[in-house]
Amino acid sequence: MKKEEVQAAIIEAVHQVKSTNPMAPSITNTVTINFVANTQIAVGGSAAMVYMPDEGKTMANIAQAMYINVGTIFPIYEETLPQTAAKLHELGKNWVVDPVAIGIGELRTKLLNDFKPYKPSIIRGNASEVIALAHLWHLLDHPSESKVRGVDSTESVDQATEAALALALYTGGAVSVSGKTDLVTDGHHIAHSHGGSSFMGKITGAGCSLGGVTAVYACVADPFIAALTACQVFNLAGSRAEAKVKAPGSFQPQFIDELYLASAEDIAHNSFDFVTL
Amino acid sequence: MKKEEVQAAIIEAVHQVKSTNPMAPSITNTVTINFVANTQIAVGGSAAMVYMPDEGKTMANIAQAMYINVGTIFPIYEETLPQTAAKLHELGKNWVVDPVAIGIGELRTKLLNDFKPYKPSIIRGNASEVIALAHLWHLLDHPSESKVRGVDSTESVDQATEAALALALYTGGAVSVSGKTDLVTDGHHIAHSHGGSSFMGKITGAGCSLGGVTAVYACVADPFIAALTACQVFNLAGSRAEAKVKAPGSFQPQFIDELYLASAEDIAHNSFDFVTL
Amino acid sequence: MKKEEVQAAIIEAVHQVKSTNPMAPSITNTVTINFVANTQIAVGGSAAMVYMPDEGKTMANIAQAMYINVGTIFPIYEETLPQTAAKLHELGKNWVVDPVAIGIGELRTKLLNDFKPYKPSIIRGNASEVIALAHLWHLLDHPSESKVRGVDSTESVDQATEAALALALYTGGAVSVSGKTDLVTDGHHIAHSHGGSSFMGKITGAGCSLGGVTAVYACVADPFIAALTACQVFNLAGSRAEAKVKAPGSFQPQFIDELYLASAEDIAHNSFDFVTL
Repeated sequence: MKKEEVQAAIIEAVHQVKSTNPMAPSITNTVTINFVANTQIAVGGSAAMVYMPDEGKTMANIAQAMYINVGTIFPIYEETLPQTAAKLHELGKNWVVDPVAIGIGELRTKLLNDFKPYKPSIIRGNASEVIALAHLWHLLDHPSESKVRGVDSTESVDQATEAALALALYTGGAVSVSGKTDLVTDGHHIAHSHGGSSFMGKITGAGCSLGGVTAVYACVADPFIAALTACQVFNLAGSRAEAKVKAPGSFQPQFIDELYLASAEDIAHNSFDFVTL
Repeated sequence: MKKEEVQAAIIEAVHQVKSTNPMAPSITNTVTINFVANTQIAVGGSAAMVYMPDEGKTMANIAQAMYINVGTIFPIYEETLPQTAAKLHELGKNWVVDPVAIGIGELRTKLLNDFKPYKPSIIRGNASEVIALAHLWHLLDHPSESKVRGVDSTESVDQATEAALALALYTGGAVSVSGKTDLVTDGHHIAHSHGGSSFMGKITGAGCSLGGVTAVYACVADPFIAALTACQVFNLAGSRAEAKVKAPGSFQPQFIDELYLASAEDIAHNSFDFVTL
Repeated sequence: MKKEEVQAAIIEAVHQVKSTNPMAPSITNTVTINFVANTQIAVGGSAAMVYMPDEGKTMANIAQAMYINVGTIFPIYEETLPQTAAKLHELGKNWVVDPVAIGIGELRTKLLNDFKPYKPSIIRGNASEVIALAHLWHLLDHPSESKVRGVDSTESVDQATEAALALALYTGGAVSVSGKTDLVTDGHHIAHSHGGSSFMGKITGAGCSLGGVTAVYACVADPFIAALTACQVFNLAGSRAEAKVKAPGSFQPQFIDELYLASAEDIAHNSFDFVTL
């Protein structure tokens, strides 16, 4: 795969989403659920959020891809999340996991552990979350030093490269590590996507919505292209929005505007590096 | 009833809400709960959201009208929703049901079925949801072909006319079908409200918030006038907001601004058709 | 303590938050949870929201201060809230309670009652909520006439002075009463903070987010200074935002912008009265 082929695949994914309006249902946290839905719709997808076990399985059946974000945990998730993940795996559907705040709480840890055999197609997190998940799943041979602080990362994207590769090789899918520069890998290729805005760290939900938008693209593209396309449109929209506002309150609606207005060509030509391992 | 009388009633409803600030509590989904509250406040009402069974019944007691939206289901709803609906019916209060994503999940179906004997004063949904509810309640004599896709409609408002009439005649209240043109009927009259914006389909919550605002007007007006007034202010605010923005991120705050700024006279004179059957 | 010392302490609190980015986790309602998080981040803090009992206790352990808002109640709160409050009290951490809609529902009343022995460092509410909490805890010797209407206050801030003093003297912390002018007291001093905007009553979440931001400042300052600093930045940002917008939809992002842009000096010099009792 050459960079030009990657760009062509990104353009194809963006066009496919805009022309087919695919629904990427979510089981996601209550903090950013509205922002996730609005960003999914802005790029051309459709959103639907559920909590109940049978609804998770129904959505797994009817959707082309799905998004599971463990940012806030409800008791019913003990049933909903493993059952939905198992169904997605059984059906061979793409699904995105966002291991928000991994390490906080017994049920969250149990649920993230339960996901291991169901091999999520895409794992999206900040550096600390990706490293912690690789440790939780025993994919790294050196000991863990958990540095997750609530929902914030304390490690750099580069520090997560090894963990991202290990996770991608285990799942056979892709891993998307968010930071100043975003890293996307399928274990055989690594892309670094540039741009974005410091304001994306000054609002809540930049990461969650990236996960949701990744799931939208995963309805029409393979995990690596889906994850990279989402990073590209976020980095493009973030930098464009930042140029027009002075603070994070105005940034949020402007960012959604830019997601909506970005062309496939501009998304594909947002700056990124691509290497084959 | 003549069109001029309808317009006078709309003006009266808008003035009554602005002068009395009625509280229309909701049991509503977590995706758009903030947007519902902000739109209810923007038109002059007051919002309060609850989940627990006794809180639902307390709200039914103290409020003039209430809003129940099944967009996201929690396990406790098995108790909360039927108990609240029964109380609202017993007290003769106006209440609005939004059968979001009808057909997804056993509990959602059970809850919507449970509502039948309590005859919601106003049913608000997209065409597919209204048709599906009429089928669920066995009010149509031809077989159902469910076309609900998550929260999106796949049918036109016109296709839902028969279902809307059947529901309104059964409940003795009104039905509000949302689409490019909105249909409101009480079984004896049909109004079509024009305007709005394509951006209302590019954000999440346009329908949910219409339901919430309908409940605000149902605090001071009969179901038909309440439902129509809500459609009129939404269509007016939607078209005014669209003229000022280029994308759905900016549309959302602008839309709330226009809801807040719209005068009673402009709301009543937004374009609509009215026929007596 | 002189007014100049109070202002110096406010400046110090604002600088400390901006330089240390403290995390103030919340257990808070679903209506305004996103707005709470975004305001906390805008002033320089970090947000994390949880629902589960062990997560509440974990957060109590790792955070410097915490926020508990009972605006919407879930069944699991019966375990989560008392356990988290007990842990916060045991660890001597600052924590803020927002007794939203006190009087609605058995569990809400039970939970607010349970908080009494754990003496929340800061109580933040509107006048009616503060009066109702003082009555619930039997801190006033005249009979209660509850005037809470959902989430709205029907009493003035001045009418809540006695209740605020009684609560502050009982807890040994501070009480923050929100209204046209905000009152903050630790039982020995009273500050009245001026400014704000009528639009803060036309959006949902002005009170909840004030509670959340109070918790951010309580990570670095004592309860009285934390509560006053939060009122000062809110009143400053509110009046600045109002000057730039015409309606509540635009007010919300503008208000977050102004929270973000406000300097420590401007926050300290926003108009307030200060008396020692």
